[in-house]
Amino acid sequence: MPRVMICGDLVWAHKECEEMFKGVADIVVMDSSNRADFLTNLKSGGKYEGIVGLYRHNISADSIGVFDKEIINALVPSVKWIAHNGAGYDQIDVQACKENGIFVSNTPGAVDDATATTALYLMISALRQYSKAERDVRAGLWKSQLRSGNAHDATGRTLAILGLGGIGMRLAELAHAFPMRIVYHNRRKVEDAPAWCEYFPAERLDEMLSIADVLSVHVPLKKETEGLVGEKMIRTLKKGAIIVNTARGKVIDEGAMIRALEDGHLGAVGIDVYPNEPDVNPRLFEFPNATLLPHMGTETCDSQKKMEIRALTNLRDFLVKGKGSDIVPEMTPKSRM
Amino acid sequence: MPRVMICGDLVWAHKECEEMFKGVADIVVMDSSNRADFLTNLKSGGKYEGIVGLYRHNISADSIGVFDKEIINALVPSVKWIAHNGAGYDQIDVQACKENGIFVSNTPGAVDDATATTALYLMISALRQYSKAERDVRAGLWKSQLRSGNAHDATGRTLAILGLGGIGMRLAELAHAFPMRIVYHNRRKVEDAPAWCEYFPAERLDEMLSIADVLSVHVPLKKETEGLVGEKMIRTLKKGAIIVNTARGKVIDEGAMIRALEDGHLGAVGIDVYPNEPDVNPRLFEFPNATLLPHMGTETCDSQKKMEIRALTNLRDFLVKGKGSDIVPEMTPKSRM
Repeated sequence: MPRVMICGDLVWAHKECEEMFKGVADIVVMDSSNRADFLTNLKSGGKYEGIVGLYRHNISADSIGVFDKEIINALVPSVKWIAHNGAGYDQIDVQACKENGIFVSNTPGAVDDATATTALYLMISALRQYSKAERDVRAGLWKSQLRSGNAHDATGRTLAILGLGGIGMRLAELAHAFPMRIVYHNRRKVEDAPAWCEYFPAERLDEMLSIADVLSVHVPLKKETEGLVGEKMIRTLKKGAIIVNTARGKVIDEGAMIRALEDGHLGAVGIDVYPNEPDVNPRLFEFPNATLLPHMGTETCDSQKKMEIRALTNLRDFLVKGKGSDIVPEMTPKSRM
Repeated sequence: MPRVMICGDLVWAHKECEEMFKGVADIVVMDSSNRADFLTNLKSGGKYEGIVGLYRHNISADSIGVFDKEIINALVPSVKWIAHNGAGYDQIDVQACKENGIFVSNTPGAVDDATATTALYLMISALRQYSKAERDVRAGLWKSQLRSGNAHDATGRTLAILGLGGIGMRLAELAHAFPMRIVYHNRRKVEDAPAWCEYFPAERLDEMLSIADVLSVHVPLKKETEGLVGEKMIRTLKKGAIIVNTARGKVIDEGAMIRALEDGHLGAVGIDVYPNEPDVNPRLFEFPNATLLPHMGTETCDSQKKMEIRALTNLRDFLVKGKGSDIVPEMTPKSRM
């Protein structure tokens, strides 16, 4: 019977996992407390020897680090499938996997709802100055520090979505309920997007930024998107605009964002992700108009379970059908963003 | 030319006010620093003598107190219209007004959007435990204190709306975007509500409460609604249910709510209003699962301006057409809730 590895604890789908792999594969749980132990046990005679696929969660980075070239090379030649649990897979060197014939899948759809809800929350909080409001009421200040001139309704305002993938589209649907005007930029037009989602190609990106009241970031972190939302993009937004980020911290040039908060160009920010998590730049704590969450995008028991089962299903499908779903776009001929 | 009074400062619509009453009425601004001065100046020879109508904002209570019997009696016989700025008008003794032939109008529609957005925000925060999350990240704890088992997606869950008026209906629309299942209780069925709003009459109220994941309160404060959400209602909710209140603090029996938070019957609460504002029961600060705002429901410049203009329009219509809109339901033959 083939062997597969659970790399990063399952929390919600233990029972489901057992049932899914019964008669299909033996399961070995990664319990190395450091990278050296992990690498050693992948070798001949080690307890992870010969695994053909693995389930991976970012939590495993706490003990063995991210899946960089060194780890990918150590997985060769037995491992053929990495079933990553999460929409973002920037902790996996996909290029190295591709070169070594290892497929990588993620769990895109499973996180759309929870992450888009987080973006909606951050947008409302930033528009309405609720983070400061709650800090004030808890400090016994009631609302004396707040001026409603800094607080705005969402209804009728313009939401610009940078990256209309699954999460961006879900946010568009939720915000359209107000309604807000929804504009978006992708490399390519999303053909199945509803008519009320207005597409702005690269040559009209500045125009989109200049009409946006809120810019919500939904692009994955790659070499090309690191620092994408930088000085130029931020300054093209109108004064008082709001930035929401539930994607990855490094997609925004944090220094440029902080400068724009300091000089009042940005009206507010709603941030769930940071360049060096779990560290948060303490400068962010000083802005009254910043709502800050500790990467909570997918933190619901519903979504966590959905993600675990989705990732495990991809791993199982690889074993049973030879191929799982959700192969990451870099490995497939055409990508959406 | 008739005289009208601005009782409680205009903030956003000064210019509009001037234009609206040009050639229609003279405007006198209430600037009494205490009740005695106010009452004196309403009398013959006083600066407020003979006003026929007034614009009122709750902020005026800070200097002259609420519009109780004493104030209403002092407005007789000249004042015929009180154009209150706000959806809730519990600071006005409507019965005394009715007995003295004074009409009272409020600004119902103008606050629907901003208040419903606040309820949506509180619901998401309570479902996802975001208040605690933000306090944790700001305390340098990242998310170590949080367990996603306590966090839930909105999608697919059931939202019970107690009082499907303008604000409740607006919240229903926003939550239906997830979608959530929307159930509601009013005294009477709302005939123009969409089919996806399921009505539960009084004899099925317990059933509605028992299926609700979130109960959002949208009834006005009156004698009959004080403490309406009490021990019995709260205990009829299922374990782990969430209460959201953007109506008035006294509609909920705060003691019963706190007991249910203490023993874990309630999963979380999202509260914008309190029984004795601006005082907040400090016990509430101790619950990790409480999101607390300082009565921010209508605190946006957009809504504030909309409300000021709406209230002023009612006052102007009374002068020009003999009757303004938005007369409060107690004065009209049939009320909605």
